[in-house]
Amino acid sequence: MIETQEEKPLFEEPLRRVGITNLRSVAKINWKGKVYTFLPIFEVTIDLPAEKKGIHMSRLVESIVEAMGEAVEEEVQGVHRSLEELGLAVVRRLEKKHPHRRAEVWIRTHLIIPRTTPSSGRTSYEPYDVEVGVVKNSSGEVEKVLRVRVTGNTVCPHAMANNDGKTHIQRAVGELEVRTRWEESIELEDMVSTVEDSFSAPTYTLLKTSDENAVVRRMYENPKFVEDVAREILAKAKERFRGKIHVRVISHESIHKHDVIAESWTEGGGT
Amino acid sequence: MIETQEEKPLFEEPLRRVGITNLRSVAKINWKGKVYTFLPIFEVTIDLPAEKKGIHMSRLVESIVEAMGEAVEEEVQGVHRSLEELGLAVVRRLEKKHPHRRAEVWIRTHLIIPRTTPSSGRTSYEPYDVEVGVVKNSSGEVEKVLRVRVTGNTVCPHAMANNDGKTHIQRAVGELEVRTRWEESIELEDMVSTVEDSFSAPTYTLLKTSDENAVVRRMYENPKFVEDVAREILAKAKERFRGKIHVRVISHESIHKHDVIAESWTEGGGT
Amino acid sequence: MIETQEEKPLFEEPLRRVGITNLRSVAKINWKGKVYTFLPIFEVTIDLPAEKKGIHMSRLVESIVEAMGEAVEEEVQGVHRSLEELGLAVVRRLEKKHPHRRAEVWIRTHLIIPRTTPSSGRTSYEPYDVEVGVVKNSSGEVEKVLRVRVTGNTVCPHAMANNDGKTHIQRAVGELEVRTRWEESIELEDMVSTVEDSFSAPTYTLLKTSDENAVVRRMYENPKFVEDVAREILAKAKERFRGKIHVRVISHESIHKHDVIAESWTEGGGT
Amino acid sequence: MIETQEEKPLFEEPLRRVGITNLRSVAKINWKGKVYTFLPIFEVTIDLPAEKKGIHMSRLVESIVEAMGEAVEEEVQGVHRSLEELGLAVVRRLEKKHPHRRAEVWIRTHLIIPRTTPSSGRTSYEPYDVEVGVVKNSSGEVEKVLRVRVTGNTVCPHAMANNDGKTHIQRAVGELEVRTRWEESIELEDMVSTVEDSFSAPTYTLLKTSDENAVVRRMYENPKFVEDVAREILAKAKERFRGKIHVRVISHESIHKHDVIAESWTEGGGT
Repeated sequence: MIETQEEKPLFEEPLRRVGITNLRSVAKINWKGKVYTFLPIFEVTIDLPAEKKGIHMSRLVESIVEAMGEAVEEEVQGVHRSLEELGLAVVRRLEKKHPHRRAEVWIRTHLIIPRTTPSSGRTSYEPYDVEVGVVKNSSGEVEKVLRVRVTGNTVCPHAMANNDGKTHIQRAVGELEVRTRWEESIELEDMVSTVEDSFSAPTYTLLKTSDENAVVRRMYENPKFVEDVAREILAKAKERFRGKIHVRVISHESIHKHDVIAESWTEGGGT
Repeated sequence: MIETQEEKPLFEEPLRRVGITNLRSVAKINWKGKVYTFLPIFEVTIDLPAEKKGIHMSRLVESIVEAMGEAVEEEVQGVHRSLEELGLAVVRRLEKKHPHRRAEVWIRTHLIIPRTTPSSGRTSYEPYDVEVGVVKNSSGEVEKVLRVRVTGNTVCPHAMANNDGKTHIQRAVGELEVRTRWEESIELEDMVSTVEDSFSAPTYTLLKTSDENAVVRRMYENPKFVEDVAREILAKAKERFRGKIHVRVISHESIHKHDVIAESWTEGGGT
Repeated sequence: MIETQEEKPLFEEPLRRVGITNLRSVAKINWKGKVYTFLPIFEVTIDLPAEKKGIHMSRLVESIVEAMGEAVEEEVQGVHRSLEELGLAVVRRLEKKHPHRRAEVWIRTHLIIPRTTPSSGRTSYEPYDVEVGVVKNSSGEVEKVLRVRVTGNTVCPHAMANNDGKTHIQRAVGELEVRTRWEESIELEDMVSTVEDSFSAPTYTLLKTSDENAVVRRMYENPKFVEDVAREILAKAKERFRGKIHVRVISHESIHKHDVIAESWTEGGGT
Repeated sequence: MIETQEEKPLFEEPLRRVGITNLRSVAKINWKGKVYTFLPIFEVTIDLPAEKKGIHMSRLVESIVEAMGEAVEEEVQGVHRSLEELGLAVVRRLEKKHPHRRAEVWIRTHLIIPRTTPSSGRTSYEPYDVEVGVVKNSSGEVEKVLRVRVTGNTVCPHAMANNDGKTHIQRAVGELEVRTRWEESIELEDMVSTVEDSFSAPTYTLLKTSDENAVVRRMYENPKFVEDVAREILAKAKERFRGKIHVRVISHESIHKHDVIAESWTEGGGT
């Protein structure tokens, strides 16, 4: 067998990220004592030095498969208490399989979190998009990147002030990213709440009429520009989470065909 | 050169639609005396009889290219007064290039239509998604399929009735399709207006504060369920357009993470 | 509380499909004795008679939630052995909550099926997109619609014949839909295999070099147009599955920027 | 009229990017003496100081509209010779309308470039995705960001070496970004060629059999990993373009369901 990957390349340029992407597979997480199954999308990359033609892609796939395989059922029970721990388990297996200086594992999936509706007190199961990155740099240090995307709404205070309380309202989407040291203890659920509590009102999958009324009243008491939502997420995230913080809010305007956006970056000191 | 396409296939099944899709190219339309350039997405298919292994794909591409080429600049000036006439021109060229019994040409693009804002009277350029299909059946008859997708809004009448005029509002998207004989005279612009006038209010790209106030007031005077929007489009389309009518409205609820939908089909008698 | 939904609408048009869409929630399936968790996308619709203004949307959400809730953990263990049984459970709960004549439940998710690689004999976990629809018509009869989408490849026999065995190869995606009576016993896994076995070669997530070689050799022994793939799926599906069959194959050509497509419909007699 | 935007916000955080996004409108470019029409997607943002509650969104829309309006037909003829000049024209109009320190204009569209096929010498019109950003920082300096996305292919050299010349081939997509000073003279067409020439072979919309044979032969003479494609783009771009360079290549593997990726960053010295 010829190992073309070990040959010299024509252009001897080092590459920072080489690997596999858009790979859907099974992941099991032991979350607060209960094993959950996910079908996330994985991206796993390593760096490639200037003098090697290619990486051995199948070893990256093996690292994912083994980190989750039946053979390590006990490991799942004991170790993967979060998506980022699963990501680190993939990095650790990769270390035994393929030489590299840098490695990244990204896992993108959905979380379902139960919420209580504001008036009838029912349980409503709410979906959120989350993504976790585990990034090992060339000195062996590990950082993690945590991302959540939450659906809420904005209620225009400018239109409300100019129309005797009448205004336009719309769905908005808030994204929060924290990039931090591996050791920081940050829960995706807390990041979701930080975003969700910053809209004019949270949204719910299940709303009986009394709940719908409560959400409507809450929206009118709490008008916000897309700028206000972004600032509130930013201010709270800075206080709660230590690390590099990125916030982006998009509001799908009900009076326009385009969207409006507010985005910023800051450094958080945590608590 | 071996013509594999002319061989016998292993499984002698006739195929109804074989061709090219997701092909982006230039199209020029002489619309009311002025030549406009578009970059639409094309799909062109023909049927394949049971005894032939394949079609000659490049002839479908040639039919598109020739129908729009520099060589036929005069033809563009004189003939293609609409996307559907361009589609028919592709079908006619295909008839000289490749034997077939059925042929379809689909063209998907955007239209920009100038509108006047409701208070300041400014011109606002509004984008709409449109798609046109030209379908020639096995007896040589030609039908056309016209589709428009329009962004508007819904204002919930149920929440308004239960909250002293307060309610939830959101962006909604309405789709109207008419499938009809080639000879029917239907303008995409009229289909766009039929949908746009059925929302709680139309939306605009450019709104000064006085315009925004006018749109907000119009929304509160005109609360509508997604069902109401679908019904109004359906009722008006039936009156205005002869052919098979399909209506679908999706409302991106501001109080939920999911969408709501209303969809129906009917036969229109036109005017 | 005012029930606006019960009022008369302005345009008294009956609507065929009104409901919720793009709702992501948890689903548990007892598949061959083991409970699996999914996070599918749901669409649930009912018809709306001409004289009622709206449907009660929250009751559709409740039907989903209850069909999967903790309260019915035993029901999950005992009853939902497939996505379509879960769909029917939603329909049955809907019957107790909201008057209607027609009802549809659609569930879209991914399946992961273990496969054995062709040379090294490893286990590779393969992802497939699936969608299941349960459609109850106005006479109470229930049909089901089963859809699978499978990633494979095509190897051009025309280029191979004209270039001494050299050819172009590309990823292709095959879709198979069967619409049939509720009582028909059809497994999504069998539909997936029907599509997967019709490509030039199946694809695998994990391939060691010896496996890669086996897949490459298989591709060159088995050149196929997109038309050939569509016909093979069609011919096998007709034999295996009773019901209305739709096949669509798209090949992401490696020598073009556009895709090629082959699509057809037939009636299957099953076995 | 109340100007809510001028009020103090609850959380006094400065925001870096506030504005409009996903706005589709008409753009006219005088490209080498001929006026072309595009329907791009615009994003326009400015910064918002800590003490102001909101920006005046409609002034951003006005800046786009005016930069392209009928009133400035002569300006189009004379000035907008590229998408980036159009972007700068929007920035300049914005300076007269809304106070700000930073401003960004992003324009995303498609280019169609005529190519000659390799054997029959026909003209084939090839589509490319392009995006241009004009970024004015707080000291008034203007940078531009130029992005192209090109469809090509990869031919695996490892499988070829291990299977007597047989291999797997697939569509690949290469992206090149250059961020540079406004004054640098870089043509999007040269960036497109830099990427297109780095694949195993370029792709064409129109290929007669003799052309298809030429492309197939070229692919087998030029096997490349995704890493090779990325390196060749990187090495050539460094030589040709001055500025910060980012390269990303994704290969839609024909033997896998997932994609492989090679990505890197460098600084280019230009020529």
